[in-house]
Amino acid sequence: MRVEYDAELEDVSRVLVEMADEVRGAMGRATVSLLTTDAEQAERVISGDAVVNGLRQRVEDRVYGLLARQSPVASDLRLLFTALHIATDLERMGDLAKHVAKIGLRRHPFPAVPEELVSIVTDMAAVADRIAEMIGAILASPDAQGAAALEAEDDAMDRLNEGLFVLLLGAAWRHGVESAIDGAMLGRFYERYADHAVNAGRQMYFLVTGEPLR
Amino acid sequence: MRVEYDAELEDVSRVLVEMADEVRGAMGRATVSLLTTDAEQAERVISGDAVVNGLRQRVEDRVYGLLARQSPVASDLRLLFTALHIATDLERMGDLAKHVAKIGLRRHPFPAVPEELVSIVTDMAAVADRIAEMIGAILASPDAQGAAALEAEDDAMDRLNEGLFVLLLGAAWRHGVESAIDGAMLGRFYERYADHAVNAGRQMYFLVTGEPLR
Repeated sequence: MRVEYDAELEDVSRVLVEMADEVRGAMGRATVSLLTTDAEQAERVISGDAVVNGLRQRVEDRVYGLLARQSPVASDLRLLFTALHIATDLERMGDLAKHVAKIGLRRHPFPAVPEELVSIVTDMAAVADRIAEMIGAILASPDAQGAAALEAEDDAMDRLNEGLFVLLLGAAWRHGVESAIDGAMLGRFYERYADHAVNAGRQMYFLVTGEPLR
Repeated sequence: MRVEYDAELEDVSRVLVEMADEVRGAMGRATVSLLTTDAEQAERVISGDAVVNGLRQRVEDRVYGLLARQSPVASDLRLLFTALHIATDLERMGDLAKHVAKIGLRRHPFPAVPEELVSIVTDMAAVADRIAEMIGAILASPDAQGAAALEAEDDAMDRLNEGLFVLLLGAAWRHGVESAIDGAMLGRFYERYADHAVNAGRQMYFLVTGEPLR
């Protein structure tokens, strides 16, 4: 009985790592599709979101099953709760990758990101990728320091988003309202993606240390 | 023991109703502060968000406590899971009310919503208010039909948001990029607020009927 239980608990962790990997790949592909106006890639991100949602469902089903059939001890219960929270955050990260891909699709075959924004969007995507990689590593091997380090990356993302707004609202902006709205939405999507990874990191920090971060 | 248990379970429901009420009030005040450039009201929304977060924490603590000290039967377990999901959605609705208030504050003492958008923003806020009222009623007295009716309101919100974009991107728009970005963000915030209420409604529908909606 206990062996089966441990196997199920392990499966929950494994699925979370898989989700982190999926949403990292999704945002990577979404960014490429956006910057290269690659509709096929964008469609792949959009249809691939069902995989992430399915993984989240698997986490829920596992947790639910474990609670229904066993009476987990307190530490396992904390782990199961944490898993549910993290699955919610990771699923949202997948949604946000889909939103980025959709912005590219809506302008296709024209680029959604004007020349002046390519560099800052590339930087935001790089931070998003690093953050997704970090949360995947933390989920694979729980680590309080790693979870805390996510916050610094999140600050970098916030600064980039501020920089993006400076460009959108500057006197030199010559791409009109629609393109500016796209840019602002993109900034928000990358920023929210990072926020959710940081949330997941905070959950892991609490799980490992028993204390809230900061 | 069972009496105490039932009382705790009932407290979870009561807190969810209270959360729905809080986030309805928050969005109502946020809209008023936005349309009347009332900074004091906006600050109240922003500081009040801690109340919503505290209520969500109370739901979590209750659910966690019930799971740790008891072994809930399957139907109660489903209820506890549903409560966690709904608390997450309601907390996000509170965040979104805060975002609306912040947009107003950022432009203060100038209005963030130009004359041409007042009518559509008022309509979006009215749908948001109706949706929040509906989810509060469903939480107070679970009702599958009411939960399904939320979807129609959500469709109304989506149509309003499309109408908002027509105004923002129309040739007649003369308020520049910054104001258009504010408008687009406001549209997104009201729309997401409705989405979360609909999510909560779907959870309730599943709880009552045992079937996913549609």
